[in-house]
Amino acid sequence: MNTTQAQLGAVLAAGGPELARLLERTETRLAEVAEGHGPELARHATATLSAGGKRLRPMLVFLCANGDRDERLVAAAAAVELLHMATLVHDDVLDSAPLRRGRPTVFAEGGRLAATTTGDLLFSRAFAELASTGSPDAVGALSEASSALARGELMQRADAWRPDVTRERYLERCRLKTASLFAASCRLGALFGGRPAMADPLGSFGEAVGLAFQMLDDVLDVSGPAERTGKPRGTDLLDGTVTLPLILARARDPALLELRPGLTAEQAEALCDRIAATGSLEAARAGAFEHVARAKQSLARIDLPPQRREALELVADGVVERYA
Amino acid sequence: MNTTQAQLGAVLAAGGPELARLLERTETRLAEVAEGHGPELARHATATLSAGGKRLRPMLVFLCANGDRDERLVAAAAAVELLHMATLVHDDVLDSAPLRRGRPTVFAEGGRLAATTTGDLLFSRAFAELASTGSPDAVGALSEASSALARGELMQRADAWRPDVTRERYLERCRLKTASLFAASCRLGALFGGRPAMADPLGSFGEAVGLAFQMLDDVLDVSGPAERTGKPRGTDLLDGTVTLPLILARARDPALLELRPGLTAEQAEALCDRIAATGSLEAARAGAFEHVARAKQSLARIDLPPQRREALELVADGVVERYA
Repeated sequence: MNTTQAQLGAVLAAGGPELARLLERTETRLAEVAEGHGPELARHATATLSAGGKRLRPMLVFLCANGDRDERLVAAAAAVELLHMATLVHDDVLDSAPLRRGRPTVFAEGGRLAATTTGDLLFSRAFAELASTGSPDAVGALSEASSALARGELMQRADAWRPDVTRERYLERCRLKTASLFAASCRLGALFGGRPAMADPLGSFGEAVGLAFQMLDDVLDVSGPAERTGKPRGTDLLDGTVTLPLILARARDPALLELRPGLTAEQAEALCDRIAATGSLEAARAGAFEHVARAKQSLARIDLPPQRREALELVADGVVERYA
Repeated sequence: MNTTQAQLGAVLAAGGPELARLLERTETRLAEVAEGHGPELARHATATLSAGGKRLRPMLVFLCANGDRDERLVAAAAAVELLHMATLVHDDVLDSAPLRRGRPTVFAEGGRLAATTTGDLLFSRAFAELASTGSPDAVGALSEASSALARGELMQRADAWRPDVTRERYLERCRLKTASLFAASCRLGALFGGRPAMADPLGSFGEAVGLAFQMLDDVLDVSGPAERTGKPRGTDLLDGTVTLPLILARARDPALLELRPGLTAEQAEALCDRIAATGSLEAARAGAFEHVARAKQSLARIDLPPQRREALELVADGVVERYA
């Protein structure tokens, strides 16, 4: 068992049988969606679904809820996971990625068209799930998050290869492309789980967790080790994505301001070593920890049962302790 | 002025100043959406928007409404047009299309990533527009339509190059990939325009109009003339899309059962001539006219002011009289 699995196990233990039951119902619902919308989606989406994932976002939905109104909570959890899956399927098309979580991607199996369209269909089903709850507020929350994800991707592309990306701009991009869906998951949990008044503070908690998650992801891309993260080091450098470790390293090693298309994988790995040598990884990791601390501060302002608070704190800790 | 423009002019005349005013408000709203979600979307979407289009779907929203509750009607009209635009932007990525309506596509100007993500963002904003109306039924109608569009695309890909595509299967694909959004436009108009009880018959009207629209599109792809349709003949054949003219022609000229990847543009044009020689274009066009007749029959069951009925009939006639 690796650190991530151990962390998830601890969250599940703290969440109790109710969390396990709701997560199981989410799996059932996701399988129904994958199977219920034509043979093409079934072929492409069932594999993606059964490849699993941490189901972090559904977990946040449930942990931010008070436990009642199961139907709507499960619909919300399925919706955030479907939206997340849609973006992964599109990302794999854009990266021409052959594998995800060790399995062939929809792009690899079905080609560009099938994968782009499968992503669109997963996207549509996410909104259909939420529409079934009868709550326009919920649909609004998801559509704002999904707009933010796309804006974050566009911003990342616009900033690619640039020497002048600031820490603030980087954080804004992380907020858009990752933290917004974590925040929406928490908001939806609060909204449907009998805690509508806590949607704002729980949303802030989710946003901080999402920021920490993305920041650590970006550290791992430079630090590796590849055999634990499952992907080679320096993939961000290869497509010109300027992340915090590079931004911080540039202040100490101005030669790193030059980043140009056409790097080889070996050159990218060498750049990772050079970034690491500046000490910027520790600084970036510390930034992620700060957001975890902020997340926990948001929780302090909310009246929660002790076990629920513990579970949410474990999720927050978990996102920065991956592969530790 | 070409036939299409003349038809649209007649619809506008029948719709009166109210229709013109609502369409203008829709343009304003679409421009606000394009400009209000980051510089990247503004750059990519503003060009797409200002390239225009017939705004057929917004027109259907307004013509199926009773004229009150402007805000929600305009939101619905913007939503269906945004969803339509999202699919066009994604289609252009998949076709690597350099031009649409004589202007560079988002794909051509921004590349694959920017275009895929711009499509996702337009998609998200479509749902955000509808969520703002506070109607889960409306969001449900749009998400079902948007799922259908994606399913239709997947079906088209699954059926590419196949010799055994039936007329029924072709019609089902047209229903999914085109008619569903026409139907949703009419339903939304009925829902927000004070005619909720007429959502079903008006939806049937929209579906029949959409089927006729797609069937005629497929005839035009074979018949041209290219200088009027704005694209070379036989583009469907080049990507293996089996449409009604080919299905009908195959029954008369079995050599057409052989359709394989790797056609040149010249070979595709020659195949168009061969399909036309079987008389299948007239038969396919007659099929489109049948659906226009069905659309008008749906209208007969609805109590409508005479001018409104006239405008809707003109829309139905218009989709099969393009480039006549």
